[in-house]
Amino acid sequence: ENPIKLAVIPGDGIGPEVTAEALKVLDVVAPGAFAKTHYSLGAEHYLATGEVLPEKVLDEVKKQDAILLGAIGGKPNDPNIPPGLLERGLLLTLRFALDHHVNLRPSKLFPGVGSPLANPGEIDFVVVREGTEGPYTGNGGSIRVGTPQEVATEVSLNTAFGIERVVRDAFARAQRRTRRKVTLVHKTNVLVHAGTMWWRIVNEVAAEYPDVTVDYLHIDAATIFMTTDPGRFDVIVTDNLFGDIITDLAAAVTGGIGLAASGNLNPSRATPSMFEPVHGSAPDIAGQQKADPTAAILSASMLLDFFGMTDEAARIEKAVAADIAERVAGESRTTAAIGDAIAARV
Amino acid sequence: ENPIKLAVIPGDGIGPEVTAEALKVLDVVAPGAFAKTHYSLGAEHYLATGEVLPEKVLDEVKKQDAILLGAIGGKPNDPNIPPGLLERGLLLTLRFALDHHVNLRPSKLFPGVGSPLANPGEIDFVVVREGTEGPYTGNGGSIRVGTPQEVATEVSLNTAFGIERVVRDAFARAQRRTRRKVTLVHKTNVLVHAGTMWWRIVNEVAAEYPDVTVDYLHIDAATIFMTTDPGRFDVIVTDNLFGDIITDLAAAVTGGIGLAASGNLNPSRATPSMFEPVHGSAPDIAGQQKADPTAAILSASMLLDFFGMTDEAARIEKAVAADIAERVAGESRTTAAIGDAIAARV
Ligand SMILES: CC(C)[C@H](C(=O)O)[C@@H](O)C(=O)O
Ligand SMILES: CC(C)[C@H](C(=O)O)[C@@H](O)C(=O)O
Repeated sequence: ENPIKLAVIPGDGIGPEVTAEALKVLDVVAPGAFAKTHYSLGAEHYLATGEVLPEKVLDEVKKQDAILLGAIGGKPNDPNIPPGLLERGLLLTLRFALDHHVNLRPSKLFPGVGSPLANPGEIDFVVVREGTEGPYTGNGGSIRVGTPQEVATEVSLNTAFGIERVVRDAFARAQRRTRRKVTLVHKTNVLVHAGTMWWRIVNEVAAEYPDVTVDYLHIDAATIFMTTDPGRFDVIVTDNLFGDIITDLAAAVTGGIGLAASGNLNPSRATPSMFEPVHGSAPDIAGQQKADPTAAILSASMLLDFFGMTDEAARIEKAVAADIAERVAGESRTTAAIGDAIAARV
Repeated sequence: ENPIKLAVIPGDGIGPEVTAEALKVLDVVAPGAFAKTHYSLGAEHYLATGEVLPEKVLDEVKKQDAILLGAIGGKPNDPNIPPGLLERGLLLTLRFALDHHVNLRPSKLFPGVGSPLANPGEIDFVVVREGTEGPYTGNGGSIRVGTPQEVATEVSLNTAFGIERVVRDAFARAQRRTRRKVTLVHKTNVLVHAGTMWWRIVNEVAAEYPDVTVDYLHIDAATIFMTTDPGRFDVIVTDNLFGDIITDLAAAVTGGIGLAASGNLNPSRATPSMFEPVHGSAPDIAGQQKADPTAAILSASMLLDFFGMTDEAARIEKAVAADIAERVAGESRTTAAIGDAIAARV
């Protein structure tokens, strides 16, 4: 078989360090499976060249089969980087241009990981976050900017097409899991136009999955349950913004975004899907081998799973779980040492 | 002095029970201070009459000085109540018609209260949630409803006028507190139009308060800190939707919405402000004297504080703290017994 064409975007801050470990583990568990091309993109690249994501590079990336991304983002409040420029010009542009409608974010409390919750219980759920619609489309605008009469709008765009495909993905996923439960998270009592449509489509698709239980929570109530009873969740399906919020909270209760992996998927494979840790570039600890590469390594596991290498993916997850279980409170291994340890176990 | 004209809307479910205890405590701490008029509104009233909030009643309520509200909402998924009808037709209509732009929600971890967090630390902050703008305006719409071509929008409306007044309120509040810190919570990297305006106005107002520290967090990051380091917050200022989310999460980490009070304020007093527990009507335990009236009683304390009866307000808060400190895990006092105990202490 031909190797899978993998675009590697290490990015900024700790991105290159954690990406190196993810690649190390991939090389051990699936040697020769990938043909890698590195792309230099992110804050540093922008500061050096003024380029965020040139058309030519996007066109090249589109021809790849998948993307492994480290982290994007410069120093906080760097006056030379307009706020949000890289998030929107690079990260969100990739998600939208590559139609990453299933933003998949698993949350699992690995044995041995400290949760900020006193009684976390067993946590093992996955969030199917819609990735190409909602309040993320950049729609909206401002008038009388900078004056006391300024008015600004933000428009959330929602389509039956866009909702149905992620809802179907969520139900199909739930059916493959033990508890078979889908929880819609929205704010239907306030955002009625979009909320009514989400409800309708969830109910329509649910009718085709009689063995999957359906549950609904307003986003505000969902944050309560996330801290008081996270074990109740199995598959959460939600819109782009609520998914952004609930997955960070989910990462927090399962031990922090240092462990949270994600896949920005186009399940049709018409465009490359993108795998990235949920965490940011953490410039304050960059280049010091202090970052935990686990989230990046778990993202690599999701990449393998996406391409049907389920055994290899599971081996990484098991190796990570074993590594975490043996961690000692207060230990300080280098980024590379953690990568080596996991690579040695897979 | 003339008594303060108080509209009492006990509402549904546990609303009447908890409101009765709040009134009991008010009568003890500030006898004769209020002239009360009861209004029958809510799910039961709607089911009996088909009325949500008749114009005539709204006009009467407008002439009152303040409103004490219990809880609104029928049985979950009651087919006879269109979803969201009461929330929008009653609760949000009151907030908008009465210009409740400062939705004030204090979060305090009372000694003795169990938090779901393992190490909550000291928690004592207040959220100034904008109450009349953002995604709550009902703006937006749908086309091709019920078809695979349906498109729905939700429009968040934001004005410099609306933002400035709550930001000013937040800074003034911060200046009266010990730590003097304002944290703006938004999602400026994605919701750029509104986000840029929030940022600008926070910075402009901050310049007038050199002794107040300013901090910024994206809403997703704010949910992380709410579970890992809630002690970092002093005054949070945020938009209507992010405020809805973060205050429920804040209530959860400080022991649950059974204790969370709120004030929907028009600080100009041109219209009556409204005080209500954050919790809902909990129809499953209604009429059984199982509800904790503490949030309603603390809302009454906020009412007193709003009208300058700061001593009386503080006496309620102290009585509540003392009552909570003596609670025994697993105890089951009736709603009235808790109200009696607090009333006896004030
Ligand atoms: C960086 C930001 C634009 C992004 C988002 O909001 O989606 C991030 O928070 C995430 O969750 O991946
Ligand atoms: C009932 C609902 C409309 C309301 C809101 O979203 O504001 C509630 O959640 C609250 O926080 O008071």
